Amino acid sequence: MSNEPIIFYDIPSTAPGCAWSPNTWIIRYALNLKGLEYKTVWVEYPDIADLCKRIGAAPSMIRKNGSPYYTLPVIEDPATGTVLSESLLITEYLDATYPGTHALIPPGTRTLQRSSYDHVTTASTEYIMPAVADILRPRSKGYFVRTREESFGKKLADMTPTGEAHEIAWKELEAGFGRVSSWMKDDMFVMGDVVSYADLVVAGEFQWFKKSFGEESDKWKDMLTWQGGRWAKLVNNLQKYEGPAEEAPISE
Amino acid sequence: MSNEPIIFYDIPSTAPGCAWSPNTWIIRYALNLKGLEYKTVWVEYPDIADLCKRIGAAPSMIRKNGSPYYTLPVIEDPATGTVLSESLLITEYLDATYPGTHALIPPGTRTLQRSSYDHVTTASTEYIMPAVADILRPRSKGYFVRTREESFGKKLADMTPTGEAHEIAWKELEAGFGRVSSWMKDDMFVMGDVVSYADLVVAGEFQWFKKSFGEESDKWKDMLTWQGGRWAKLVNNLQKYEGPAEEAPISE
Repeated sequence: MSNEPIIFYDIPSTAPGCAWSPNTWIIRYALNLKGLEYKTVWVEYPDIADLCKRIGAAPSMIRKNGSPYYTLPVIEDPATGTVLSESLLITEYLDATYPGTHALIPPGTRTLQRSSYDHVTTASTEYIMPAVADILRPRSKGYFVRTREESFGKKLADMTPTGEAHEIAWKELEAGFGRVSSWMKDDMFVMGDVVSYADLVVAGEFQWFKKSFGEESDKWKDMLTWQGGRWAKLVNNLQKYEGPAEEAPISE
Repeated sequence: MSNEPIIFYDIPSTAPGCAWSPNTWIIRYALNLKGLEYKTVWVEYPDIADLCKRIGAAPSMIRKNGSPYYTLPVIEDPATGTVLSESLLITEYLDATYPGTHALIPPGTRTLQRSSYDHVTTASTEYIMPAVADILRPRSKGYFVRTREESFGKKLADMTPTGEAHEIAWKELEAGFGRVSSWMKDDMFVMGDVVSYADLVVAGEFQWFKKSFGEESDKWKDMLTWQGGRWAKLVNNLQKYEGPAEEAPISE
């Protein structure tokens, strides 16, 4: 067993605080909620696959063409020698390995926690891509734009709807969160008065928009009003678990 | 307080055992799992709205044009005077009102249980409509075909894809269940070794296909093999909670 902090691999940006990715935010919140010591290692997009292969982190999925798809978050825990990818698996691991800390996937809820994930994450991807490209650092940006345009089969600039379709898509995005909100009734968190993985998924989505569009954007200001401001309250409630603002290394 | 059994409103069919609707199956299972006394009252489709208005059951949704949409299941509990629609709300009510019985929505999991619902229910609707029409009794069938064709804007016979598209759609349906299955790992039930609402949703979907296509159909036989037969095991495991096979009243 080593006393070294957990190594948490994240993707840098030029946004304030550096962290921006919705999925890595889940683990950033989780580590802070659990009070575990960690050290962020920033990895530019073109380096993610090589890193994962080198340290033995599994791909998060296999593409239809059979090739592995490597993503962050990934953690490396010197205390146990464990290397793990994917936010749900990492959260499960942290719950099991550090039982004295805040449990984020209460017993019996893993499948349910995972199934809640899709409700707030499916609608937004195409919407936010161009804004993400704008906050990435140069090496990541080139890689991100090329791979996303290949994957979606269109120019990034053409992915976000415009004019009336833009208004409709934005309302649909809000409606996705509205569905979850209606199930939550007056609860602060998905499971009532205790934070769990599902809340971190929602908060991660909000961080994604905040960092990509910026705090001064109309989009972010609008999101803070969604569902009577309930998500603004959630993000605010979790602010103490964001950890310190970080900076990416100067060299790329 | 009355000792009269709970009145459970369900839609009849010509299929064996009469019950076929995925959403009412959730409550049929729930009542049996809880060991509560109930009496089924069969309601043909054209009579559902009038019944709900008469007994004071809320519509399950408001259509885009502002009109209320009434659906079953609905229960009427003489012991408390409660009339309730919608499977999740009814299940919550039964958990709260009959605390000595099997809890189907463990504390803190309501939002999560509800969010799991969509994963196995969105893909199948258009697929199964024509088969449902075939098992309805004449009054319901005419009403069902007319309202569904209006709502979907096409003939029922044209809703199910044909040829290669049929094969693809069927595989996608299986993949939807496969996603849930992958999150469940080796667990028998969504929450591990204890049945909860989410399992009844899955089992209800399976009953829907079993009753609509028939036990001898290739589709049903194929579904029993999905995900290594895990759902066949689930439905089999819950068979003791199906209650006695019922018959619709002779007159319509």
